[in-house]
Amino acid sequence: MIKIGLDAMGGDFAPETAVQGALLALEEFSDIEIYLYGQEEKILECMPKSHDRLKIVHCSDAFPMDVKEPAQAVRSQKDASMVRACQDAKTGDIDAVVSAGATGALIAAGTLIVRRLKEVDRPALAPVMPTIKKGKYTILCDAGATSEGKPQYLYQNAKIASIYAKEVLGVKSPKIGLLNIGTEESKGGELQQEAFKLISADASLDFVGNIESKSMISGEVDIIVADGYAGNIAMKAVEGAASSIFKLLKQELMGSLLGKIGAVFASGVFKSIKGHMDASSVGGAILLGINAPVIKAHGSSDSRAMMNAIRQARETVKQDVTGKIKTALQSKNT
Amino acid sequence: MIKIGLDAMGGDFAPETAVQGALLALEEFSDIEIYLYGQEEKILECMPKSHDRLKIVHCSDAFPMDVKEPAQAVRSQKDASMVRACQDAKTGDIDAVVSAGATGALIAAGTLIVRRLKEVDRPALAPVMPTIKKGKYTILCDAGATSEGKPQYLYQNAKIASIYAKEVLGVKSPKIGLLNIGTEESKGGELQQEAFKLISADASLDFVGNIESKSMISGEVDIIVADGYAGNIAMKAVEGAASSIFKLLKQELMGSLLGKIGAVFASGVFKSIKGHMDASSVGGAILLGINAPVIKAHGSSDSRAMMNAIRQARETVKQDVTGKIKTALQSKNT
Repeated sequence: MIKIGLDAMGGDFAPETAVQGALLALEEFSDIEIYLYGQEEKILECMPKSHDRLKIVHCSDAFPMDVKEPAQAVRSQKDASMVRACQDAKTGDIDAVVSAGATGALIAAGTLIVRRLKEVDRPALAPVMPTIKKGKYTILCDAGATSEGKPQYLYQNAKIASIYAKEVLGVKSPKIGLLNIGTEESKGGELQQEAFKLISADASLDFVGNIESKSMISGEVDIIVADGYAGNIAMKAVEGAASSIFKLLKQELMGSLLGKIGAVFASGVFKSIKGHMDASSVGGAILLGINAPVIKAHGSSDSRAMMNAIRQARETVKQDVTGKIKTALQSKNT
Repeated sequence: MIKIGLDAMGGDFAPETAVQGALLALEEFSDIEIYLYGQEEKILECMPKSHDRLKIVHCSDAFPMDVKEPAQAVRSQKDASMVRACQDAKTGDIDAVVSAGATGALIAAGTLIVRRLKEVDRPALAPVMPTIKKGKYTILCDAGATSEGKPQYLYQNAKIASIYAKEVLGVKSPKIGLLNIGTEESKGGELQQEAFKLISADASLDFVGNIESKSMISGEVDIIVADGYAGNIAMKAVEGAASSIFKLLKQELMGSLLGKIGAVFASGVFKSIKGHMDASSVGGAILLGINAPVIKAHGSSDSRAMMNAIRQARETVKQDVTGKIKTALQSKNT
């Protein structure tokens, strides 16, 4: 049995979507057990039925979505659902953690409690981004777990994201691009230039060179390697631009009669685009380089998105991604 | 007379759009003279008529749009049109330079030839970005002129962009945001935290705090201050996402009959969105902090976009933005 800990109190619709997502996942997979961390009473209120592979781990506390000073919160709120789940992942009582709670808090809990593998210098947050190519996803690594950038960290990001892409997304030979301000090898500062050398020197990696942020969702590569600062800036810029454009489009279409008529005819197309740009169908962002998989589902996840994040956790455990990362990085400087 | 130097050989449709843009601008403004830098024969081929305030400065050389090693090209190709225009701006023979040529080369020419003001530590490239609010623009400063980040540079970017927004865009009290990975004051590394302190300590600036890259085109602020590396990543991510999304939209609409019908009805809306997301209506990106205004028009500029960049150059000279930047930064550490 694969034991998955679910932070029932994280996310905009907690605990309802977590509970429903758990029930969906239990139906789908017979080899998992789910542990719901959170306030028992609230969980029971929205649980339509019990399940023999579903257990509640009562926690008196929970983080709000806009938790300030996440590291301090993680250290001081010992009975918060997210903290308890991470503690149990650290001891091995559960195999993975899924949470739709505050990203900063989850990164802090993963880093401070689950703790990084000794083979890895810094953990990295790796979201799976949709692209405009149907069925094609790009992993961004790191999207903001480590804001300090060093060439060696970027090289490790390339290695661990490559393992993840192979084992969980089933990409045979993942193409890797290095986020930079231009495509030529000489672009960027020392960080990017040195990382370029380290990554290209590793024959086990399929490195295609530098990639600009304008290609974030064009589907050209399977992995975009970045330091957490630039990765975070690029990811949020894409998310914000997409959301701004769709908002504008909706507003303009609804603002004119012809636009409204056009929108009715094109509604199938809009729905299809929305569906295929929806990252939650492949799960959430995984925090890599720590002792157990910790997965961040989107804050606005519905039950299906929670189910997909649980599926992703199961797959990551089944494929022993953590073990494979340890092995691959044992000789750090090869 | 305001003397504007136009690199006739820069841009995807050179020299035609430059020549036509110059003629449009001369009709519109009676107080400018335009100097066309480029190969005389080619310029004359696409010049329908002469104009008494239009002069050709013959240059035997020109940079391609994909110039490699821009700094070296600027140093060695002394008779390239862009280099010659920048030289004349340095000596004061002309008041400003407009080019739709390679961005990297123009930044190098502006920095190495026109040279930075002694009052400014580093030049900054400041594009005017469209936002989803009609008629509202946001200046990004720096979008990639200086990739090394220091708090003092970011503070100066805030000051010079503020002057530019007031004098050229007519924004009375420009709201300034600092690009960061979160909105709290404590976010980011030392660079962002120290820059935050410097900018907030200056009472002459309307600083609203940190802003995330998801707000690049939301129209919340008039100015986004960034180091050139993060600014470049954010800008290109937005451009790439917008272009990817519109490409996907077009492809999906054209892929189904209902979509095609919808697109016909909504064509006015799509055109209106395209128009209002088009930055070229307010001109190009200005390189600030050097001895004369140097303006980068988009490579794909048509004659109207070139005209708008010339208008922007004229306004920048008329308002003496360079002089005002010198004065404002004379006591650097206030």
